[in-house]
Amino acid sequence: MAAKSSPGLEGVVVGETKITHVGGEEGTLHFRGYDASELSEQISYEEVVHLLQKGELPTVSELQELKAAWYPLRPLPPELEQLVGKIPKGSLPMEALRSGISLMGAGLKAFPPRDLDMLPFIARAPTWLAMWYRASRGLPSVPPDTTLGHVSSYLYMLEGRLPDPDLARALEEYFVLLSDHGMNASTFAARVVLSTQSDPASAMSAAVGALKGPLHGGAPSLVLDMLDAVGVPGNAERWIAEAVARKERLMGFGHRVYRTEDPRAKRLKQIAQRYARAERFTLAEAVEKAGLEALRKARPNQPLYTNVEFYAGVVLEAVGIPRELFSATFGIARTAGWAAQLLEQAGNNRIIRPDASYTGPEPRPVPIRSVAPPAAAVPRSA
Amino acid sequence: MAAKSSPGLEGVVVGETKITHVGGEEGTLHFRGYDASELSEQISYEEVVHLLQKGELPTVSELQELKAAWYPLRPLPPELEQLVGKIPKGSLPMEALRSGISLMGAGLKAFPPRDLDMLPFIARAPTWLAMWYRASRGLPSVPPDTTLGHVSSYLYMLEGRLPDPDLARALEEYFVLLSDHGMNASTFAARVVLSTQSDPASAMSAAVGALKGPLHGGAPSLVLDMLDAVGVPGNAERWIAEAVARKERLMGFGHRVYRTEDPRAKRLKQIAQRYARAERFTLAEAVEKAGLEALRKARPNQPLYTNVEFYAGVVLEAVGIPRELFSATFGIARTAGWAAQLLEQAGNNRIIRPDASYTGPEPRPVPIRSVAPPAAAVPRSA
Repeated sequence: MAAKSSPGLEGVVVGETKITHVGGEEGTLHFRGYDASELSEQISYEEVVHLLQKGELPTVSELQELKAAWYPLRPLPPELEQLVGKIPKGSLPMEALRSGISLMGAGLKAFPPRDLDMLPFIARAPTWLAMWYRASRGLPSVPPDTTLGHVSSYLYMLEGRLPDPDLARALEEYFVLLSDHGMNASTFAARVVLSTQSDPASAMSAAVGALKGPLHGGAPSLVLDMLDAVGVPGNAERWIAEAVARKERLMGFGHRVYRTEDPRAKRLKQIAQRYARAERFTLAEAVEKAGLEALRKARPNQPLYTNVEFYAGVVLEAVGIPRELFSATFGIARTAGWAAQLLEQAGNNRIIRPDASYTGPEPRPVPIRSVAPPAAAVPRSA
Repeated sequence: MAAKSSPGLEGVVVGETKITHVGGEEGTLHFRGYDASELSEQISYEEVVHLLQKGELPTVSELQELKAAWYPLRPLPPELEQLVGKIPKGSLPMEALRSGISLMGAGLKAFPPRDLDMLPFIARAPTWLAMWYRASRGLPSVPPDTTLGHVSSYLYMLEGRLPDPDLARALEEYFVLLSDHGMNASTFAARVVLSTQSDPASAMSAAVGALKGPLHGGAPSLVLDMLDAVGVPGNAERWIAEAVARKERLMGFGHRVYRTEDPRAKRLKQIAQRYARAERFTLAEAVEKAGLEALRKARPNQPLYTNVEFYAGVVLEAVGIPRELFSATFGIARTAGWAAQLLEQAGNNRIIRPDASYTGPEPRPVPIRSVAPPAAAVPRSA
């Protein structure tokens, strides 16, 4: 077979999917044929989990069944709960989440996973993260409530009080909108891992590890840092011009796939407008406008738009998520997509193993070693 | 760009590498130009770690420097050591190793890693695994000895006594031989994770997760189960014929890349012949012969050979590695290759993100929901 070289695999089709269509040219995003923005207005996170996995929205009784299987899984098993406070100090939230998902795989079913095998990860990832976060801040533990909806429950476990329903709804809209995004790097990493017939915990923890990188999901709070630095809308133009002059990268602009406006950015802006404080939203809009103008002036031939990170930070801040938990909250929302994509991978599996082009030294003889070979293997004290 | 569809990415070149060349047609394997079998006869694991990372064998002083940086890292930091006994009961060794590598990343340097940033993982993975294994079996803890060579140290921590130098050397030959194997699924998973500018712990734990799958490294003890079932050489032909008649998969035969004899299988057979009990080796040879004959008769046009798993199990058994630790021991050996490949990825990084071909439903309107949308978000008790 002729080798096809494709650095980064850009434009290489690794397989078929029936789950999510990212229309990079048109700026569209559909889950199982439904517009993701519309879904985020209308359905719950539980429903999108069902939709992504099964292909159709749940009926009332299917949704009840799903919740009946899901909510009781929310508390951590005792062996896992006792580890929450023992994760090494100085761990980043994404590190704690990655280790937690790895640890929660013990004794669970391996390959091939069925629908219900993914639920423990979706149900417990927020419990683990919230309990770890509170423990790491010296806050008292909040046992999960198994009657709340998934997103409210996450906020409840983080904050220790029942969330404002409007803000819980704002976060749910974020969760639904970000629940999947096709073959991105974290989803692909998860599929590669599962493709050896490995288990869901291996695949999901790999996905968290990939999402952790700043080129993927690891930097959503930097937009807020930029807003803080700008301070007031009147500073936006000057601040942006100075940053561009310093050749700094502006956070929250541009995406590898979308050649037009990212539909999630558009929808997150609506959510931000509805739920964020008015002065925060006005500042964000001023910085967005100044950023787009400056970037379009600098690169007039390149279509450039606000990306998903720009207003995501504004929404998460409005909801009250601590800034250091933005990436991990993104990961919690994305467990729905990872789960669905792993089930799809398992249903039509083939090991994912590309080639590399070798450009190193030609074959050469091993030189006679002056170091006696077995030295390292013989115990000094033997 | 025209989409190129390549299920499993077979034949797709994802990038260049100067580390390892797998000659699938010729049955060759070279690390930095040196024949891997020859290296396994002549050098230590410490030397192959240096070779894979830096491209040349270490000088005497470079090797001393490497050991001086490496061996003191062997003990687990106290925060990690206290977790060893708390990993959920019922964890598989590969699950314990995956979680341990994830946990040991806390507070370590993120992207881009330099050579020395990989050493804690190479140095501590065997400590973690051996301490966890002994704790899970109720055996007393064996603190690491920071004067032993890497491979001897692993055996010492597992067994609680200084290893037989011959058997330590046998295991070191296995470690050197299996230290890398080009762009396999675990290495590729690690590179995908790192490519988002994520950290070495995320990438290495993903690699362990991928290696765990039985299509990759997760089934090396099954060959021994087969040898046990056959019992004596005289049974081999009949047992194999019956297994083939039952359409059972014979363990230890065939490889996706090699179209001829896997050079590692050839070398592992030599190591097995030298170090395994004579009757065990004779049995293995009889089963190999019967298996190859039966498979060649069944598929006369398909080249079929013993793969790396066949004699790996015989070698590890001879060394005294418990059967349930075979996969994890393979993982420990492979940390050298993962480390070198991650450094290479970091040195010329580009996010790895293929496409998928969408074959799901066409865009369709979101139906009017009978379930009230914000229900799940409103606390029932609010």
